[in-house]
Amino acid sequence: MRTTADTEPGSANVAVGELGGTPVTRQVLDILVAWGVTRVYCCPGSTEAAMLDAFVGRDDIELVLVSHESTAMAAADAEARLSGRPAVVYVHTNVGLANVLSHLSAARIAYAPVLVLNGLKPSVLAGRDGFTTLPHPDLGLRDLVKWDRVPASADSLPADLERALGIATAEPAGPVWLGLPQELLETTDPVDPRYPRPLPGPRRSRPSRAELRGVADLLTGATRTVLVSGGEVARHGASDLVVALAERLDATVLHEDRRGFERSSYPTRHPSFQGSYDARHPAVANADAVVFVGCQVFREFDVNGGPALPAAARVVHVHVDPSRIGRLHEVDHALVGHTEEVVRDLLDALGPRPATTPARTPAPTSGSGPSLSPHGSPAHRDLTGWVRPLVESLTGDENYVIDATTAGPALLGALPQTRPDQVLTTSSGSLGWGLGAAIGVALAQPERRVLAFLGDGVFQFGLPALWTAQRYRAQVTFVVLNNEAFAAVGLALGRFGGEAVRRGDWLGTDLSGPHLAQIAGGFGLHSERVLTPDGVGAAIGRASQPRGPSLVELMTSAKEE
Amino acid sequence: MRTTADTEPGSANVAVGELGGTPVTRQVLDILVAWGVTRVYCCPGSTEAAMLDAFVGRDDIELVLVSHESTAMAAADAEARLSGRPAVVYVHTNVGLANVLSHLSAARIAYAPVLVLNGLKPSVLAGRDGFTTLPHPDLGLRDLVKWDRVPASADSLPADLERALGIATAEPAGPVWLGLPQELLETTDPVDPRYPRPLPGPRRSRPSRAELRGVADLLTGATRTVLVSGGEVARHGASDLVVALAERLDATVLHEDRRGFERSSYPTRHPSFQGSYDARHPAVANADAVVFVGCQVFREFDVNGGPALPAAARVVHVHVDPSRIGRLHEVDHALVGHTEEVVRDLLDALGPRPATTPARTPAPTSGSGPSLSPHGSPAHRDLTGWVRPLVESLTGDENYVIDATTAGPALLGALPQTRPDQVLTTSSGSLGWGLGAAIGVALAQPERRVLAFLGDGVFQFGLPALWTAQRYRAQVTFVVLNNEAFAAVGLALGRFGGEAVRRGDWLGTDLSGPHLAQIAGGFGLHSERVLTPDGVGAAIGRASQPRGPSLVELMTSAKEE
Repeated sequence: MRTTADTEPGSANVAVGELGGTPVTRQVLDILVAWGVTRVYCCPGSTEAAMLDAFVGRDDIELVLVSHESTAMAAADAEARLSGRPAVVYVHTNVGLANVLSHLSAARIAYAPVLVLNGLKPSVLAGRDGFTTLPHPDLGLRDLVKWDRVPASADSLPADLERALGIATAEPAGPVWLGLPQELLETTDPVDPRYPRPLPGPRRSRPSRAELRGVADLLTGATRTVLVSGGEVARHGASDLVVALAERLDATVLHEDRRGFERSSYPTRHPSFQGSYDARHPAVANADAVVFVGCQVFREFDVNGGPALPAAARVVHVHVDPSRIGRLHEVDHALVGHTEEVVRDLLDALGPRPATTPARTPAPTSGSGPSLSPHGSPAHRDLTGWVRPLVESLTGDENYVIDATTAGPALLGALPQTRPDQVLTTSSGSLGWGLGAAIGVALAQPERRVLAFLGDGVFQFGLPALWTAQRYRAQVTFVVLNNEAFAAVGLALGRFGGEAVRRGDWLGTDLSGPHLAQIAGGFGLHSERVLTPDGVGAAIGRASQPRGPSLVELMTSAKEE
Repeated sequence: MRTTADTEPGSANVAVGELGGTPVTRQVLDILVAWGVTRVYCCPGSTEAAMLDAFVGRDDIELVLVSHESTAMAAADAEARLSGRPAVVYVHTNVGLANVLSHLSAARIAYAPVLVLNGLKPSVLAGRDGFTTLPHPDLGLRDLVKWDRVPASADSLPADLERALGIATAEPAGPVWLGLPQELLETTDPVDPRYPRPLPGPRRSRPSRAELRGVADLLTGATRTVLVSGGEVARHGASDLVVALAERLDATVLHEDRRGFERSSYPTRHPSFQGSYDARHPAVANADAVVFVGCQVFREFDVNGGPALPAAARVVHVHVDPSRIGRLHEVDHALVGHTEEVVRDLLDALGPRPATTPARTPAPTSGSGPSLSPHGSPAHRDLTGWVRPLVESLTGDENYVIDATTAGPALLGALPQTRPDQVLTTSSGSLGWGLGAAIGVALAQPERRVLAFLGDGVFQFGLPALWTAQRYRAQVTFVVLNNEAFAAVGLALGRFGGEAVRRGDWLGTDLSGPHLAQIAGGFGLHSERVLTPDGVGAAIGRASQPRGPSLVELMTSAKEE
């Protein structure tokens, strides 16, 4: 893992005969590599020299430079989701940390094991209120990470780093934070040779026999079962097993409610699939059993408790995170454990389909999209003319990222989802996540192009990501649905029904003005603006040609002729 | 203050016969107006409808829409610095709050009384982990604000709001935070008619007679006095008094160390002015008394204690914030109080200049800039050719904002500073602050053009501010010194002296690629790129013509011919 460099003796700081950095920063990278980390998303500052220098000349781990920390955070979140391994962000002091917090909430919700390394000024400066120090440099982390620590010394750093990676990846997985004071990174003391240590094996929990038996009995007795498939099914590689479970139970399958949707988990072309969860969905209304597998139940937006649970059905919730069970609604049965293990256990407990039962294919309902969105609005309907040619222009094999507040539901219902994780999105409400996330997806799966569907408000939040996309030639087509508005704010004003509605003065919503394709061109991307839906197909085709990123701006605000 | 609207009866939510919003949100605006607030910088979300609606039809307070919260925060900071009154930011839930934290640290350091209003989801959602809620929605505020609160009820909201404004403006001033759960804003209960209450009068503290006498005696006995003028001199309107004090004492005047510089406080063309504080400055080395007036002493960057205090001189520190005295260095005398009051007291205690003493004009040293920067680097020297024509192209009457990490010192030394607050900058390390700050300056003082000097790294951090600048036709010329690098990171790698230096592989520093003028053009700004210093003057001239913002990109990275 280490290489002996043939350079001349270096400065006093640097151990001779190794590559760059210091013994401890080289060891940090060795530990990350041992955990399968191949890149670190970094927006550096002047405290990071000893760490940056350690990357020089290494070919087993890459520093991916970003021009704003928010890009790094979203990219790492997406990469961790796709790889299932820890992904790493490195940011500079409290001002850098502040800029990851918004997207850190997205990683937290998605159980993404992201390690946030945070270069800190030398500890002695903090006590003296030095430059970019705070008494409590961890800002608002306590709600956003599973674990946070500043190592007490350089000696304890490797163990703390391995602990951080272990805790991030232990189920339920999630982000962690490690503060790295400059003096620890710059010490030239020799390091403890026991690190990196052998990786821990997988630790997957399963529910008890009695709990499994109870659910299996319920499902054996049920005749109208609905399976609701959530993002944890994809994260735990259980999609094929959930398909098998649906077939075994003759179940109708729905995706989880869009407010909690994080990632594709069930093939939408499978005959059992019938759209998104909604209490008014006919399959739900008629069900005698509903099994939520790896879902949030639910992510509540308004003070309405989120979607209702069906009154007439028995409800089962399968999740790896025991604290997620019963948060909003009591359920009849809970199975806590790793999704793949639980579904396999359930299939075993159910046994093979009785020979006397004919296979039943659920009657498809009209369309596969979430046609009954409780937050429907004119903005959604107007997009139909744009979404159809957009979807027709796809090969169906790309990866998709959605970060579009009012356009999201229509896209989520229309995009092909033949693979787990083919669509990634966030239920965090953190605007701009999608630009960085698309880069993370592109770097993690370079063989496929990514299409990132963005609102125009979102686009401005994530703008600096275009620089990183271009620098690393990320195979991303950014597709901006430009309605020239914070349309969600307009919807809220509409629901409020006050003076804004009476006067037609939609204050705080008008984002018109910028030419987003031209802005993207300034970053070096192939880009074009499309004024009518009939131009979509060709534009998407042209945008797929260049090796590297591109942008297509769809002027959905344009008046229809 | 209130207007009766002649609209039809509205929805159930809205009281009839008033303007928009609810009684409580109308009262919130009334209270802000009573405190002299004329605009609220806002990046809204769907929780803000009742507040947004209250702005509709009002002509005494304006909502300034921003496309990223960081713009709002920096603009409010700058406005508060110039007006001396509270400035207000309104952001959406924890994801919006996260995006102000970095620049909130800038406001905190600058004693800017910014009120951060933070729309929160209905309180009941937080207990159920609803959309954009956190158990502790205040994130990392405890180190960044003087006071933070979520009102217990709509009844207590007006008192809490006035308390927030009172605490923000009480000396030492600083930012405060008020969380506003949606249900409080949407209640239709009548409000307490006692609000807004009469404003409190000014409360300015002064040091004791004995302390003043001690310092006056010291200064009467001193013959080689240095006055160091800091940002608090400007904030408290004491610049003219400090000039008088300098003349009374025949003192050499220096600006505070650039690491702690926040705002112009002393006219650089005054004969007593001789550059920035540095322990090696001849006037400091020879001084028998050094008086720091309204300075940070100091903002430490490296573990070196910051600039040294002169060993041979007695040291006096005047500051309104008692917690700032002696943080880094013990001083001989401290005078805690409002800067204007303290300097006036000192002048009184000193009495008129003795008739026997001839006025002494300090011999000017070579140049007025901070020529002895401890962080000098090739990057600074290379800029001379660019900074000279840049400064020559100015009228000298504009306002200036500096947010440029490696170019900052050269600019700070070269720009005219004839008025207090003519130059604003930040010692927070929060990149991108300058773009929003320039907007705040332009809106607060629309009669003068603002030139905002930015690094290219900084520019990417603050990009969305261009949208707000264009929308509000802010009279700002953004001047980007594009060295195509995170040059400060390069300097740090150079100081570290490791593998990066040996290989010339300046990893983590290369920001080349984007055409920043083209990006600005995409936002609708007049913009151009300048390749050689001889093009600077004409470009700045053209950029000053349009009514509204413009951008000039100086390619300082270009090889000199």
